[in-house]
Amino acid sequence: MSEGKPTQVFYHTGAVTREERAALLKQTGATVWFTGLSGSGKSTLAVALEQVLIRRGHAAYVLDGDNIRFGLNASPKILADARGYADEPARRFGLGFGAADREENIRRIGEVAKLFADAGLIALTSFISPYRKDRDAARKAHATHKGGAVPFVEVFVNTPIATCEQRDPKGLYKQAREAAAAGNGMGFTGVDDPYEPPTSPELTLSMATQTVEEGVAAVVNYLVAQGLIRG
Amino acid sequence: MSEGKPTQVFYHTGAVTREERAALLKQTGATVWFTGLSGSGKSTLAVALEQVLIRRGHAAYVLDGDNIRFGLNASPKILADARGYADEPARRFGLGFGAADREENIRRIGEVAKLFADAGLIALTSFISPYRKDRDAARKAHATHKGGAVPFVEVFVNTPIATCEQRDPKGLYKQAREAAAAGNGMGFTGVDDPYEPPTSPELTLSMATQTVEEGVAAVVNYLVAQGLIRG
Repeated sequence: MSEGKPTQVFYHTGAVTREERAALLKQTGATVWFTGLSGSGKSTLAVALEQVLIRRGHAAYVLDGDNIRFGLNASPKILADARGYADEPARRFGLGFGAADREENIRRIGEVAKLFADAGLIALTSFISPYRKDRDAARKAHATHKGGAVPFVEVFVNTPIATCEQRDPKGLYKQAREAAAAGNGMGFTGVDDPYEPPTSPELTLSMATQTVEEGVAAVVNYLVAQGLIRG
Repeated sequence: MSEGKPTQVFYHTGAVTREERAALLKQTGATVWFTGLSGSGKSTLAVALEQVLIRRGHAAYVLDGDNIRFGLNASPKILADARGYADEPARRFGLGFGAADREENIRRIGEVAKLFADAGLIALTSFISPYRKDRDAARKAHATHKGGAVPFVEVFVNTPIATCEQRDPKGLYKQAREAAAAGNGMGFTGVDDPYEPPTSPELTLSMATQTVEEGVAAVVNYLVAQGLIRG
């Protein structure tokens, strides 16, 4: 497999330090944690921000339901199908939508984002993450990371529920309202399950009063002001 | 927080494509999966390779027991302490060292490496990962990733057990031999639990016959030959 000319490699013992990594990648890894109601614009903002950061030459990556819920945090059913698991390990390791499973979902996402940020990337997470204690636990995991504290930027996408419900791109509010009216509550955030707003987020945005460009610019400005990326 | 002059951002709808990401980061993400006995040199190689890649301006990151077993795949005890969990969720979501837990440990690591590689990084995993079916499942997860297949490079660190046992940096073989002799087997790979060698690894190395520099150079040459990183 190797080419004709042997590659010369030189190294010294020990892992790359945080500082060396940041200097070589020309950015300091961080997690930008978007939180807000369904339909608030988290994903739109995260995807637009990823694109803007990458075009500026920064490594960034969105963690969202699409890449998490079919893999790392797959449901018991998906896990059983993919692995040929019997019922028991699939039920134990797969994640459903009960309270404990939702908490574990956010815990794992927090841990993965932390690893991305430790690697020097800007990790962008796009999950409703409605409970304050789960978000605070993710923040704490970043602050107490063994390799040194990792920056955590909580972005509250405070779009009013009326606007979210008007947008309702997947028709979820409609479904949740009907289910709740029929006495079959889904535990849908904002309808029949609470959203606990952050008490001291690093940034607050709203898609009711800002454009996507303005929201993205606010996050970019924040990251520049913190010295995490180039201006 | 924002600076005086507003940042102008421009974006178009939709996520960054795989090709665009690779072009901007000047590398194609991939997972380099080191497998081999305890003491075979996996971690030494992975850490040296990370350093060499980063010094060449490539984003790379080692996933190993140090950053996985205290966070994402923490034990029930660590999880209970960190989260204030009662016994039940800690036992359900924490990972011990039983057969099912070891499999889930490797599954999650495979999923996280895949996300890193999808983000454009060179993910380096350093785990014994003794079972063929677990490594093959990680390979399959990469091949079938929703966003498109992600390169997976299995590196078999085929250092003979005699050499591993001589190195025994953490005294684990000694402990495992004593436990096995006393009829208290620990299920230690190579002593009282099998290591299933890869049938068709992309690369095979051995710390009995190669230096660390030679091993790292072999992987770098392979990545260059595959067009994943610059030559």
